[in-house]
Formats: sequence, C-alpha cells, structure tokens
Amino acid sequence: MTEKEKMLAGEMYDPSDSQLKEDRLNARKSVRLYNQTTEQEATQREKILKKMLGSTGENLHMEPPIQFDYGYNTHVGENFYANFNSVILDVCDVTIGDNCMLAPNVQIYTATHPIEYAARNSGKEYAKPITIGHNVWIGGGAIINPGVTLGNGVVVASGAVVTKSFPDNVVIGGNPARIIKDIIQT
Amino acid sequence: MTEKEKMLAGEMYDPSDSQLKEDRLNARKSVRLYNQTTEQEATQREKILKKMLGSTGENLHMEPPIQFDYGYNTHVGENFYANFNSVILDVCDVTIGDNCMLAPNVQIYTATHPIEYAARNSGKEYAKPITIGHNVWIGGGAIINPGVTLGNGVVVASGAVVTKSFPDNVVIGGNPARIIKDIIQT
Amino acid sequence: MTEKEKMLAGEMYDPSDSQLKEDRLNARKSVRLYNQTTEQEATQREKILKKMLGSTGENLHMEPPIQFDYGYNTHVGENFYANFNSVILDVCDVTIGDNCMLAPNVQIYTATHPIEYAARNSGKEYAKPITIGHNVWIGGGAIINPGVTLGNGVVVASGAVVTKSFPDNVVIGGNPARIIKDIIQT
Repeated sequence: MTEKEKMLAGEMYDPSDSQLKEDRLNARKSVRLYNQTTEQEATQREKILKKMLGSTGENLHMEPPIQFDYGYNTHVGENFYANFNSVILDVCDVTIGDNCMLAPNVQIYTATHPIEYAARNSGKEYAKPITIGHNVWIGGGAIINPGVTLGNGVVVASGAVVTKSFPDNVVIGGNPARIIKDIIQT
Repeated sequence: MTEKEKMLAGEMYDPSDSQLKEDRLNARKSVRLYNQTTEQEATQREKILKKMLGSTGENLHMEPPIQFDYGYNTHVGENFYANFNSVILDVCDVTIGDNCMLAPNVQIYTATHPIEYAARNSGKEYAKPITIGHNVWIGGGAIINPGVTLGNGVVVASGAVVTKSFPDNVVIGGNPARIIKDIIQT
Repeated sequence: MTEKEKMLAGEMYDPSDSQLKEDRLNARKSVRLYNQTTEQEATQREKILKKMLGSTGENLHMEPPIQFDYGYNTHVGENFYANFNSVILDVCDVTIGDNCMLAPNVQIYTATHPIEYAARNSGKEYAKPITIGHNVWIGGGAIINPGVTLGNGVVVASGAVVTKSFPDNVVIGGNPARIIKDIIQT
C-alpha cells in the first residue's frame, strides 16, 4: 500500500511521504486563495470549493477563513453552510449530509496520534473518518473528534466536545458531549 | 414589518432579504479592511470601528482579526478592549458596558436557529440579544450564547460556555457555565 | 525595577510602558509577516520564528495564522509543531520541551488580570509562567491557563480547559481538565 492508501484506510502512515506533502501544499494554496477572496467574489469562492473538496452539492458556502488538510477527503451534501473559522482536518474521509450548517469556529478533526510518545515521535500518525448525517446543525466552537458519527437531525450545542457517536434527532452538548434532549421532528 | 425589523425584534426573519444581504456585505467589507490594517495603523483601526459599530466610547481597541455579522447592532461602552479572533454575531443587539475586556477567541452569538430541521431548513432564523454589564472580563475562548445577560463586574473563566444569565459580581466558568465564586468588590 | 522586569517577574506591571509597547509592536509586525507568507516559503517561516521566539530547536514548524504577545518569552525545544491558529500570550515565560505538538486552535495564556474590577481597571496586569514538558501533545482547541505546568509525556484531550498543573504521563481532558487515564510508556 502507498502511504496515501494507508492514510485513507485509517492505518499508521508517514505524512512526510512526497505525494502527501504535495497534496497538502496544493490544499494550502487553494485555502490561501480562498481566504484571500473578498466578500464580492461569491462565484470565485464557489469555484475554489467545488474544485478543492471531494464532492459537494450545487449550493454551498463557507465564510472565510477556512482551513483544510487535504480538501479532497471532505464530501458535503446539498446546501452546506459553514460560518467563520471552520477547521476541517480531513486526513481521512469527512462525510457531511444535505442541509448541514456549521456555526463559527467548528473544528472537525479526523487526525490523531499514538498516545505513547515513543510511537508518536516516530512521526507516523493515523486518522479515523467522521460521518455527519443530513439536517445537522453544529453550534459555534464545537469540536468533533476522530471517528465520530452523528445521525440525521442532530443539533450540537455551542462549545460541545464530541468524543463519541450519537443517533438521529438528539441535541447534544457539554464536554464531553452528552444527550441533552430528544428532538421530535414534526 | 420588514425583514430587518423582524430580525431586530427577535422574530423569525429571512436572511436572504436584499437589504440584509447588502448590510452584511458592507460589514464584511469593513471587517476585511480592518483585518488588513497593520499594527502601525491605530488611527485607521479606530476610525473603522467607530464607523462600523452601532455605538462606542471614545477609547476602544480590538486586535485583528475580528468578525461581525452586521456591526451596527453592537454597542460597546468606554474603554472596550478585545484581544485576537473575537467573533460577534450581532444579528440583534449586543450591548456591552464600560471597561469591558475580551480575551482571545471570545465568541458572542446572538444568532440561533430552530431545533427542528424542517423549520431550520426553511432558511428563516432568529436571534436573541446579549447584554453585558460594566467592568466585565471575558476569558479566552469563552462562548456567550443567545439571550444571555451578564451583570456588572462579572468574570467569565477561559473556556466557559455561557448558556444562561448571571447576576453582578460573580466568577463563572465551565461547560455549561456555573458560578465558581462571588467577587467582593473592595 | 522596570515595567518589563516586573512583567517577567510575575508582578503587577503597566502594559502602556513605552518599551513594552514597542516590543509588542515588533512582535505584531513579525507575526503579520509570518501570517502573510505562503505555503511555499518554508525557509522564510523558519527564519522569522527563529528570530522572533526566545529560543527554539533546529527543527520547528507552525502553521499560520499564529499569534504571540512578545515572542521572545516563548522557548520551544526540538521538533516543535503547531497546527493552525495557535495563540500564545507570552507575557511571561512559556517553556515547551522537545517533541511537542499543538493541534489547531490551542490557546496558551500566561496573561491574567485582577478579579476585582477596580484593580483591573487600573490597567495594570500580571502574568504567570507556563511550563510544558517533553513529548507533550496538546489536542485541538485546548486552553492552557496561567501558571500551569504539564509533565513529560502528557496528552491533553481536545477542548480541555487546563486550570491546574499535572504530572508526567497522563491523559487529561474536560472543563476543567482532570486526569482521564495514566499512560504506560513502553
């Protein structure tokens, strides 16, 4: 397997691999150009996002500044909206359904490292995919940890630190996040 | 009522209204120009803030980068100071007293959405005003949720997620924020 | 004692002192130039960091944007890595060992203020040093408060708010941060 294949498979991989370095440089360039656009350049913004991300719906918007690790591992559905300062470490797949919105400063992290420092200092690292259902609203400053799956219709309270998966139609919040209440979708 | 009047009144409104879109574009332009100033341009920074915000004291400073939704719904008293990365979603009024300081990454969110996705996906949204008293210090990374009122002399610990209102002269912290201790002002 | 000497000693000092203002302006200029570099300018980034920080190892990298108060009070060991949006308020010493990594949005705050508003409004403030051991990994969005010492091999969970010191080889997390588990280094 190539380092990229290991990375995408959630196995330990070497991020200093030349292909991965080039991919990250490309993403950083796209992100920089995106963050340099002005509020008048909606068409240019949409064009950069649709080229950089793995897949998108027709309608999407992200308020700059944004940050991605690769971009191509992020897949968003129709009507995706992200407010200021979203950070998406898409070392492996980040899959987001239709009609999802991120408030400011939302952090989505697939990237992780070994807990023991000897293994961590090897420079090798790994990632776990994040899957977010349809119709999910993630509140400001919330953090989504590696490997988390959120069901459809979930609302994540501002400041929540989401360390495990949750089913459909719940409001979650706190650090670590817990179910605050069920949502009866009418 | 116009969409803007509904928005300011805390009622459900349509953010795709042409007047509101223009107002947000104007705010984003002012914010961008502010964030592009250099550390030598204190006079220019003060000028932009005094023009963009609803009202200010004579003396104020915000370390860029900053983010506002409208700017004109934010009212700050004398000697306002905000450190790096403050985000103020002033969809309706944000009122801050005299001698208040925000540490880095403070998030002030009046904006909110329906919990049920069908209503949320309509695109209509609403907001609740935030009122902060005099002599308040908000610690780094703290989040102030829609509808919160903080009394005079309050200290908000770093990382606090403030989901309800608190009276004068207390230290609050945690997620969700609770009273940690009373402050005896001498 | 000069105001700078008081500041470094952790005593109340006046930040409007002309020497300190000049030092902060210099740091903000270096930070701005750093944040304006492109992803192709690795050499220039390294050069700015090595000049701005108090001391560094040979190998270090920080993903822009970064923020520092002075820069010269920050000392990092070999192989230091910081991901996007790190904020280091190094009003007094921030000392970080070898092989440490900061995830995105990590906040390191030595700066603090009096709790009583009358003293706080004097404009005088103070700081407490932060010391981080070797082989420490600080997760995304974590906040390190003034005066904290972290031992060697510590892992700080994402979103942790670290309000007190912790010994070697523990995983800490939560708000406020507590020990989640011990790490057996093999």
